[in-house]
Amino acid sequence: MSEAETEAPDLVADVLDGDHRALARTISKIEDRAPGYRDIVSALHAHTGDAEVIGVTGSPGAGKSTLVDKLAKTYRDRGLTVGVIAVDPSSPYTGGAVLGDRIRMASNVGDMDVFFRSMSARGQLGGLSTATADAIKALDAFGKDRIVVETVGAGQNEVDVVRTADTVVVLVQPGSGDDVQMLKAGILEIGDVFVVNKADMDGASTTVSDLQEMLHMREGATAAGAGHHGAGAAVESDANADDKSTDEWDPQIVETVATEGEGVRDLIGALDAHYDHLRSTGELDRRARTRTAEEIRQLLRADAADLLEGEIDRRGGMATLVDEVRARETDPYTVADRILTPLADCVRERRERDDPVE
Amino acid sequence: MSEAETEAPDLVADVLDGDHRALARTISKIEDRAPGYRDIVSALHAHTGDAEVIGVTGSPGAGKSTLVDKLAKTYRDRGLTVGVIAVDPSSPYTGGAVLGDRIRMASNVGDMDVFFRSMSARGQLGGLSTATADAIKALDAFGKDRIVVETVGAGQNEVDVVRTADTVVVLVQPGSGDDVQMLKAGILEIGDVFVVNKADMDGASTTVSDLQEMLHMREGATAAGAGHHGAGAAVESDANADDKSTDEWDPQIVETVATEGEGVRDLIGALDAHYDHLRSTGELDRRARTRTAEEIRQLLRADAADLLEGEIDRRGGMATLVDEVRARETDPYTVADRILTPLADCVRERRERDDPVE
Repeated sequence: MSEAETEAPDLVADVLDGDHRALARTISKIEDRAPGYRDIVSALHAHTGDAEVIGVTGSPGAGKSTLVDKLAKTYRDRGLTVGVIAVDPSSPYTGGAVLGDRIRMASNVGDMDVFFRSMSARGQLGGLSTATADAIKALDAFGKDRIVVETVGAGQNEVDVVRTADTVVVLVQPGSGDDVQMLKAGILEIGDVFVVNKADMDGASTTVSDLQEMLHMREGATAAGAGHHGAGAAVESDANADDKSTDEWDPQIVETVATEGEGVRDLIGALDAHYDHLRSTGELDRRARTRTAEEIRQLLRADAADLLEGEIDRRGGMATLVDEVRARETDPYTVADRILTPLADCVRERRERDDPVE
Repeated sequence: MSEAETEAPDLVADVLDGDHRALARTISKIEDRAPGYRDIVSALHAHTGDAEVIGVTGSPGAGKSTLVDKLAKTYRDRGLTVGVIAVDPSSPYTGGAVLGDRIRMASNVGDMDVFFRSMSARGQLGGLSTATADAIKALDAFGKDRIVVETVGAGQNEVDVVRTADTVVVLVQPGSGDDVQMLKAGILEIGDVFVVNKADMDGASTTVSDLQEMLHMREGATAAGAGHHGAGAAVESDANADDKSTDEWDPQIVETVATEGEGVRDLIGALDAHYDHLRSTGELDRRARTRTAEEIRQLLRADAADLLEGEIDRRGGMATLVDEVRARETDPYTVADRILTPLADCVRERRERDDPVE
């Protein structure tokens, strides 16, 4: 701990100074939840807010990695710096299984202005989106102009992850009805820009028209599909204004052949148009506020969960509590009360003693 | 509060005594989180454990209500008592939107041994599955032999809800490719019995063979689809033994025409077979333990969230905290620490003062 504390200010200074190795070490610490990482992220936060963050999701095999490579290269050709975070949420709920780093071989590896880092899951509820948000902050504070967050698959975890972005790109592979169907399962609602990649394949035009049709129905689908939004949506209601119907963004569809670099300029055009739209409508700030509120709630939930696990352990562990409940010696509410009442009492005593708030 | 406290013992006694109106009032209290409902559920818990709980999910229009009606009627004809809970998780994340009761018109309404109650969402994370579990307890303590939990749609919330059941029935409507595709989105993994309803429709046999094929691939899909399982899966790892591969249940497919009552006997046969399997393999107990652990964690999370919201309010509310973070005056970790450190200190002080545990 003390080592981390003495190291942290140097590391932060080095990141702000543009030291790529310091950036790599910082993101490793974030990924590993290494001692001191919270202080580092706290210190970096003051230097964030300039980067444009793009989330890319879509089913495996749709060509995300290739497209992200080409996108990064095109940005670089325009003189912009780019950071890429590849997020692999495999097995997020296995309770602590840790995947190794997955460093992708790609055209831009070695070009240190493109920074690949593979975040893996930590089995912690919401931990992946928190770690992604923290890594984005590191890249933002470092001074990257564009940050691309790329997910491996296209499930609920990926949705949570790409919600950390300003603009969400959903990649669709033509021909496989799967992709179009998957879009219905919650991913349709979150896309700002849709990319039909491998647009030279048979069935690409059908996929485009299917997409157009689905996007046409999206307004209705968004209302009906609330269940897919996950915890994030709950925050919108208190952090967002409610004039969502005005200045609605019309999702764009772009056709690309990522392997050839075809359509990447069109994609950047659509991304720029969306970002301009976000800025001019005030939606950029609203989204950022929603994300900040969700970040705070997520951290509180995770920290409170740790605290509660400690209390469960102190009472003999969950298996013991379950035994008692199964034997009808007690019941879940009584168990929860026994654990939480002391905490609530503590909080009340403290309020009475310490008020006003510091 | 005091009224509820004096009323609670009477209400519990009346429920245990077989008073249907007391049961209705109890479930209303559970649904509304009315004062005293926790004490009531606590008191009922000791009298639970005898009912067989069946969860029914599937896309809207698949014929769930009709099938559940016929199922309940057939059970009744066999001299069993049945309780039905219809769960409608619409708009669960809109932050407190309360749906009115949805009392379904059905063949069995008026037959008081079939008890319909429509649970609605309370905007609370996991609140719906907790309320469903509590309502199941009320019906169980009352003495119902079979409890059917029926969901309206087939999204993540519905998955969480049907996980409160011993046996999960997934309804599929032939012809609409939607249903089969939806199964891929996380519902395939949780089904113990699959029902192809409207089996007299065109395409029914295709649906059956599609299902067979998907179930055949399910083992692989279960491993890859971990992201769909939600919070529940995390609990399995500590409450369950890990011999899941032995004595694996082979999911059954049943064809029905619910409107005609065709195939309902076959369905009951499949349900009985699954229940016997659960019992003989010890899986019944393992599932119950997993659910109990998840119930406890869910209650702790919800109570802790209330506590934390109180602390957020005391600091001017989330909007104020977000303002401070957006202005770079502070950052999410510092905000979280400021709120949680006093709680953690409290807990530590108490441990030092009060140990050993009561």
